[in-house]
Amino acid sequence: MADQNFFQTARPLSLKEISSATKAEIFKGSDASYTVSDVAPLDKAGPKDLSFFDNVKYKEQFLVTKAGACLVSPAMAALAPKGVNLLVSKSPYKAYALAAQMFYPEARPAGSVSARASIHPSAKLGKGCVIEDGVVIAEGVQLGDGCWIEPNAVISRNVKIGAQGRVGANASISHALIGDHVRIYPGARIGQDGFGLAIDPAGHVKVPQLGRVIIEDHVEIGANTTVDRGSGPDTVIGQGTWIDNLVQIAHNVKIGKGCIIVAQVGIAGSTVIEDYVAMGGQAGIAGHLRVGKGAQIAAQSGVIQDVPAGEAQMGYPSMPLRQFLRQAALLKRLIKKEKAP
Amino acid sequence: MADQNFFQTARPLSLKEISSATKAEIFKGSDASYTVSDVAPLDKAGPKDLSFFDNVKYKEQFLVTKAGACLVSPAMAALAPKGVNLLVSKSPYKAYALAAQMFYPEARPAGSVSARASIHPSAKLGKGCVIEDGVVIAEGVQLGDGCWIEPNAVISRNVKIGAQGRVGANASISHALIGDHVRIYPGARIGQDGFGLAIDPAGHVKVPQLGRVIIEDHVEIGANTTVDRGSGPDTVIGQGTWIDNLVQIAHNVKIGKGCIIVAQVGIAGSTVIEDYVAMGGQAGIAGHLRVGKGAQIAAQSGVIQDVPAGEAQMGYPSMPLRQFLRQAALLKRLIKKEKAP
Amino acid sequence: MADQNFFQTARPLSLKEISSATKAEIFKGSDASYTVSDVAPLDKAGPKDLSFFDNVKYKEQFLVTKAGACLVSPAMAALAPKGVNLLVSKSPYKAYALAAQMFYPEARPAGSVSARASIHPSAKLGKGCVIEDGVVIAEGVQLGDGCWIEPNAVISRNVKIGAQGRVGANASISHALIGDHVRIYPGARIGQDGFGLAIDPAGHVKVPQLGRVIIEDHVEIGANTTVDRGSGPDTVIGQGTWIDNLVQIAHNVKIGKGCIIVAQVGIAGSTVIEDYVAMGGQAGIAGHLRVGKGAQIAAQSGVIQDVPAGEAQMGYPSMPLRQFLRQAALLKRLIKKEKAP
Repeated sequence: MADQNFFQTARPLSLKEISSATKAEIFKGSDASYTVSDVAPLDKAGPKDLSFFDNVKYKEQFLVTKAGACLVSPAMAALAPKGVNLLVSKSPYKAYALAAQMFYPEARPAGSVSARASIHPSAKLGKGCVIEDGVVIAEGVQLGDGCWIEPNAVISRNVKIGAQGRVGANASISHALIGDHVRIYPGARIGQDGFGLAIDPAGHVKVPQLGRVIIEDHVEIGANTTVDRGSGPDTVIGQGTWIDNLVQIAHNVKIGKGCIIVAQVGIAGSTVIEDYVAMGGQAGIAGHLRVGKGAQIAAQSGVIQDVPAGEAQMGYPSMPLRQFLRQAALLKRLIKKEKAP
Repeated sequence: MADQNFFQTARPLSLKEISSATKAEIFKGSDASYTVSDVAPLDKAGPKDLSFFDNVKYKEQFLVTKAGACLVSPAMAALAPKGVNLLVSKSPYKAYALAAQMFYPEARPAGSVSARASIHPSAKLGKGCVIEDGVVIAEGVQLGDGCWIEPNAVISRNVKIGAQGRVGANASISHALIGDHVRIYPGARIGQDGFGLAIDPAGHVKVPQLGRVIIEDHVEIGANTTVDRGSGPDTVIGQGTWIDNLVQIAHNVKIGKGCIIVAQVGIAGSTVIEDYVAMGGQAGIAGHLRVGKGAQIAAQSGVIQDVPAGEAQMGYPSMPLRQFLRQAALLKRLIKKEKAP
Repeated sequence: MADQNFFQTARPLSLKEISSATKAEIFKGSDASYTVSDVAPLDKAGPKDLSFFDNVKYKEQFLVTKAGACLVSPAMAALAPKGVNLLVSKSPYKAYALAAQMFYPEARPAGSVSARASIHPSAKLGKGCVIEDGVVIAEGVQLGDGCWIEPNAVISRNVKIGAQGRVGANASISHALIGDHVRIYPGARIGQDGFGLAIDPAGHVKVPQLGRVIIEDHVEIGANTTVDRGSGPDTVIGQGTWIDNLVQIAHNVKIGKGCIIVAQVGIAGSTVIEDYVAMGGQAGIAGHLRVGKGAQIAAQSGVIQDVPAGEAQMGYPSMPLRQFLRQAALLKRLIKKEKAP
């Protein structure tokens, strides 16, 4: 059970309710009226817990789990120990995520505006916004219904944030138009000037950065991540893209829908990342490139050429994953050969 | 045109005025009294816009641009379509940067000190400083004329900042002496203890960090970048150096003049970076090294030896760029050969 | 001497006092009653300064130092110039660190709680806590004696911090239980949601993150570093571990005791780092791995397999250090051979 100092569970739920919310089907012989009150991993779950089995690695745990109910793929359902009520889904982990959200809905404080926040009279706040202590909201800012702005966050002039937005503690946002259901984590920096300069030994000359940051709906932007605004064109983060902590998104970058960008990735200026691209931690993408739809870039890779759609790459500079693995194996063999006299 | 919610243009300018400020010359046959009111890229510019052509890649756009005026190099001026007024410069991009600054001067708020800032009575503020809500300025701080401190920034005891400084939202500065025209972006951390410890399995022992951070004039330090103070010697950032976001500068590092350090670079303790060095994103420089004047370090390189002045390097560990490229090509050939038989 | 605007020395100390605090022994012929009033490097120290000699690289400086007193290893003591009072220690640098702490104790302000901080009435503050301007402390927070919370830091609901904790400016902490003598640097982000999602092209589904961050005693966490809370299990940082700036620690990571993690390292989810591991800057460790006790991971390495205890590794992907060095040497030879016709 999660630490109750930090997490509160909602009411118990019947399998029928969970099935209806997750679209997992109640397995034959399982009890639709059975109720569970929490989620837990296979090896810790008890009769009042819902668990899930999605990774063959944990099969041994599944075979002896004491969970009252379990989400499982159709192929694995028959292996369940007796007495476990089963919910069958092709995506047990996704179904688990949805169920866990029911038990642990986001602990959004009731709507209130702190007297210790500084809110410009021209700012427009939607219904039920929570504005915490020390927040600074400048003139012309518009917040949709149900936004939650955590302490000491700063929202600059004319920024718009859609409904149900959440801005973490000490984050700052300027020059940005943000959609609905967007979450900006603590310390993220959105909308500052891009790194635009005309190089000159007598003193580099700043190029005014005249674009914005456009963030579409359902985006997450991690803690201490930086997203610079465009230099003229905009910087764009597409719908449903998730960005982890300490990522750098430079000016004019366009990121498509549903991308997954892991911590400490850097994407240089004007690069286009198409939909559903995944990038491992610390990968770097040079500027003015195009990474095709669904490409997968391994952690720490250094991409310096366009990446075809759907291709998996790794390496510095990055290359097709297979080629990188062959290269690594070849080097090992060469060294071995050398040592053998 | 830039989004007027975020950017305001100043008054229209004649080519004569632009020529005088940028030192670009009015081309023969162009109209010195012609006025433009905004800047725009070649393919979007109209008769009232100033554009620039500096990269052969965009030649097709230049040949048909509808810009009212265009900055261009002497060699390219003859290719301009009829009716475009030309300003000729050896550095069209730099001239554009200067002109764009005229149309879009920094939107510095008029001088005022927020009643919601905490300013120690012993702090000295120059004329026309803007101190926004939630700023904390400790005892003995000195700010030059025209400084702009954005919301919730923190400036600790006895820090000095020169004229026209700007400190971004939620940034923090301690143990630092900062010159004129320095810009610190949101969330940057300047002056905290370096990572100095005497290793001991019974408990590492902190080595007091007794130096400062010295930042010379016209420096830019990016969002969420960290600059630790020296351990005894100072950490120094030389005049006109530009540092991008999420960069780590360790204690005792000395950076010369006019360097360009792209996002997520890390420079380890006591390393010296001479003047006009450029480093690509995510490059790492080990401690106690010297990177010679004008060296260029490619993105993601790992530098573990001194770098001669003027040398271009790449690789992990880094090596002269040509050697790295040969190495990459050789590996490709070896793999091909293996597959062949 | 350190800049007195930023550092104050405590009273002069006799060699006897320093010996007693550092366990360095007074060398035969040295004067136990001799007093020094500051610390300084070998080449800058004068008769009233304590210096140290711990690295053969600086032998020339040692041979002519004018320091009044010097910490030195037993083997080197005989080389000291006449007139230098010697304190002999097997760990001169550690002894120096302890002595320097005596001259420059942490400049902790006298206990006071700012009227410009927002402190929930249910929060419990130990004796002598310093809470600076703009700090936000939520309901149920518990701070031990002598905690120092710097300006604009945010501590969320029910977080506990032990005695003598220090939280830097603009840092934020949630869902965390923190031991004694822990220092969190400015802008660090502790306890936000881990990057947990069920991938789905129709919209990734958030997996509620139900664990905490547990930080044991004597830990340091650097500026703008991010430590995500666990997804169910906790994220744990073991006693006496030091973490530098801009490091990413993902959910469920367990770090042992006495580890040293240099700037910009990233550790992916659920990885276990055993005691006394050292990691160079920008190294990356993939998820679900185990790095054995005392392993040493070179800067920028990419670890994608378990690392045996005590092993030194380097490379991308990382391999035993010797193998990596052989590989680098082999590649150099192959290129040379190619060039020779």
